[in-house]
Amino acid sequence: MEVYFPATYVDQEALERYDGVSQGKYTVGLGQERMAFCGEREDINSVALTAVQSLMEKYDVPFEKVGRLEVGTETVVDKSKSVKTTLMSLFAEHDNHDIEGIDTTNACYGGTAAIFNALAWLETDECDGRYAIVVAADIAVYEAGPARPTGGCGAVAVLLGLDAPIVFEKGTRASYMADVYDFFKPHLDSEYPEVDGALSQRAYTTALDSCYEGYRRKAAARLGVDVTTDVPAYMLFHCPYCKLVQKSVGRLLYNDFKNSAPGDPRFAALENFRGLDHETSLVDRDLEKAAVKASASLFDSKTDMTLQCSREIGNTYTASLWFSLVSTIANATQSLVGQQLLCFSYGSGLAATMFSLRVVKSVAHLAAKINLHSRLAERVAVPPSEYNQILALREQTYGQCGLETTSSLQLLQPGTFYLVSVDEMGRRKYARTSGRRAQTTASELATTTARL
Amino acid sequence: MEVYFPATYVDQEALERYDGVSQGKYTVGLGQERMAFCGEREDINSVALTAVQSLMEKYDVPFEKVGRLEVGTETVVDKSKSVKTTLMSLFAEHDNHDIEGIDTTNACYGGTAAIFNALAWLETDECDGRYAIVVAADIAVYEAGPARPTGGCGAVAVLLGLDAPIVFEKGTRASYMADVYDFFKPHLDSEYPEVDGALSQRAYTTALDSCYEGYRRKAAARLGVDVTTDVPAYMLFHCPYCKLVQKSVGRLLYNDFKNSAPGDPRFAALENFRGLDHETSLVDRDLEKAAVKASASLFDSKTDMTLQCSREIGNTYTASLWFSLVSTIANATQSLVGQQLLCFSYGSGLAATMFSLRVVKSVAHLAAKINLHSRLAERVAVPPSEYNQILALREQTYGQCGLETTSSLQLLQPGTFYLVSVDEMGRRKYARTSGRRAQTTASELATTTARL
Repeated sequence: MEVYFPATYVDQEALERYDGVSQGKYTVGLGQERMAFCGEREDINSVALTAVQSLMEKYDVPFEKVGRLEVGTETVVDKSKSVKTTLMSLFAEHDNHDIEGIDTTNACYGGTAAIFNALAWLETDECDGRYAIVVAADIAVYEAGPARPTGGCGAVAVLLGLDAPIVFEKGTRASYMADVYDFFKPHLDSEYPEVDGALSQRAYTTALDSCYEGYRRKAAARLGVDVTTDVPAYMLFHCPYCKLVQKSVGRLLYNDFKNSAPGDPRFAALENFRGLDHETSLVDRDLEKAAVKASASLFDSKTDMTLQCSREIGNTYTASLWFSLVSTIANATQSLVGQQLLCFSYGSGLAATMFSLRVVKSVAHLAAKINLHSRLAERVAVPPSEYNQILALREQTYGQCGLETTSSLQLLQPGTFYLVSVDEMGRRKYARTSGRRAQTTASELATTTARL
Repeated sequence: MEVYFPATYVDQEALERYDGVSQGKYTVGLGQERMAFCGEREDINSVALTAVQSLMEKYDVPFEKVGRLEVGTETVVDKSKSVKTTLMSLFAEHDNHDIEGIDTTNACYGGTAAIFNALAWLETDECDGRYAIVVAADIAVYEAGPARPTGGCGAVAVLLGLDAPIVFEKGTRASYMADVYDFFKPHLDSEYPEVDGALSQRAYTTALDSCYEGYRRKAAARLGVDVTTDVPAYMLFHCPYCKLVQKSVGRLLYNDFKNSAPGDPRFAALENFRGLDHETSLVDRDLEKAAVKASASLFDSKTDMTLQCSREIGNTYTASLWFSLVSTIANATQSLVGQQLLCFSYGSGLAATMFSLRVVKSVAHLAAKINLHSRLAERVAVPPSEYNQILALREQTYGQCGLETTSSLQLLQPGTFYLVSVDEMGRRKYARTSGRRAQTTASELATTTARL
């Protein structure tokens, strides 16, 4: 695995002050600390290019050894030409054109769908022993207002093949898909989504309940395992904002409680809610609070550390769940070998799946290559005013043809691909930064962004 | 398999007269006879709903027996919410939510990618014996001008499972993917693509050459078969317009010639071109003409009848190749059992694959269910002036929020889903026509479209 996130972030506390909202609204209410973002120099193609090229270089993957490459994203700069085709520019110079896979789309679920597709391909006769690569990448931006602090930007590139240190457990994954308008992007000329926040939270929880029930049923039938939240070592979730994940751990505990015999002392704190019908349980605030409280230690031990990237980068849509895996690898204090990770992927609209991973070999080399903590720490905080200015420029240039980008390249890490231009027809050109990034201070940044 | 195409078409000869272009420009130059189109009442979701519901009904597929459903399309009405999620409304009433798969996107290649993904899923432990369904669907429209007659509209829904009458041959498919701006959709608020026609034809041919070489190499290595155009019973192609396919059959013959020993009498007509380098061969008009002429009988016997839908419906993008399969099934004068079909899928941008199918059981029931000839014949010709008026309305309503559709439902066949409204947030509502369609004459249509 390799990750990419921009070198710039905005601090959520600073954003609270700047937006004039109550203290803790973003940091406690949403559970977010920092939010990564990018300017006009980066788009979904450049972000994916950076992640894939870096994966290839760090792990010395021969370009001719890749037989499948696919992309999960909901960040659209072209309604027809896939991000995957842009990534082919990296393989063309190695004369490898026989690479299956294109882009898959449904909100934040595309990365998971792409991984499932690549995994299945690895099992078929079409796979000639070469690797598959999946890139989950998104740029999450919201119009100015209450949803803006739930943005983020990042990519996870995953190399898939035989003898991997992490395996997908088979035959137990369970999906829930439905026709719901909770978060969607009908405004084609805008980068911003429409969001029905209350519906989205309810849809997420409905999907979580159903997937957990399906996963438990399949695990019981196929493996003879009675799954509860006691079983997995860690529980990973798609994370729009960390608070929702905390609530979701509580929700899984509530499901365990519902599956328990009345009076089970382990669930004493929830016993009052046993009579609640399912519909009411989805929106009952008292239940939510009680479940979050009752699951506090469960959250601390099995989920909290999986959220580091989400807290510090924000929502990366299709990449979010995979960033949780990266956080888990980076933060595990003991060996993960032998441990099971329960995963919940969710994309609005909606498509959701619960599945499990098993770590079968040391992942220390992944942690070392990804180098998460240093890379997060090396980033530069941008003041909220500059951040909003940069987003205003994104808004202005989104979908624009006849564009030459002019923002400073100092904002980009070495080895980062960036958008050079979009010609009158809409054809995009990219280049890559080289060398070590010069230290960029906040005051230099102010100068830089003033030139935008 | 089931297909859907609109009840309305415009005649290409009539369009030639109306556009004031030289006689034969569309009919001979492009090889097109009729072009299906739809008005504001239909969008990609409604088209896919119609195809899937009709497949389920015609073949009596129990809704709970579907474990995967995915969509290949490049017709975008929402950048995040997949068409697949809208299709879930059909399954929700049967309480089947555990259905994997979402949308795959790269120009006209998405249907093929979706089918490959579904096939791979069928082989894994995630498939619990249920069927997969793939819908390839698109609405192809072009701005007024020379590309407009290359539009079309249609959907093919395919039921995939074990013991099928048509099987995908394994281990020989070969892909060619590259970063090319030959046809793309960077204008997000418009339904129309950007097209570089000359580049697209060259890219298509480059991909065809490479895929044919790869397919031949794999078939030789894995099956010990020396593939030439003599081997398959039929040759099916993605068809932007029929003339390009005719040229492509010539191109495959040229490839056979290049693989033959100098002086091979079967290729006497091409011998003069043996010295041509590959780059020149891609654009040499004399070679193209000679190859088309030399491959005339090959085209007549192995490809011509596969193009009926393309000729009479137009380009259906992701569905095009699968409509060729439908044409083959509908037009085979002898049993297809035992026959091999060589297929070439192409999506600009670009992504292409050559693969082969083998018919292993009678497909007469498919031909009967699809009932192609009657359905094509039952359509209504709309005069070019009305057609342009209807496309002007599409242009106006594309991406519009706060829309109530008002066009007559008489234009729709019975059992057709249609768009009722798009609310201010962008949420779409659909309904379905019932009963037998009243006979609609051209003059009634004029009245109808005048009310648009």
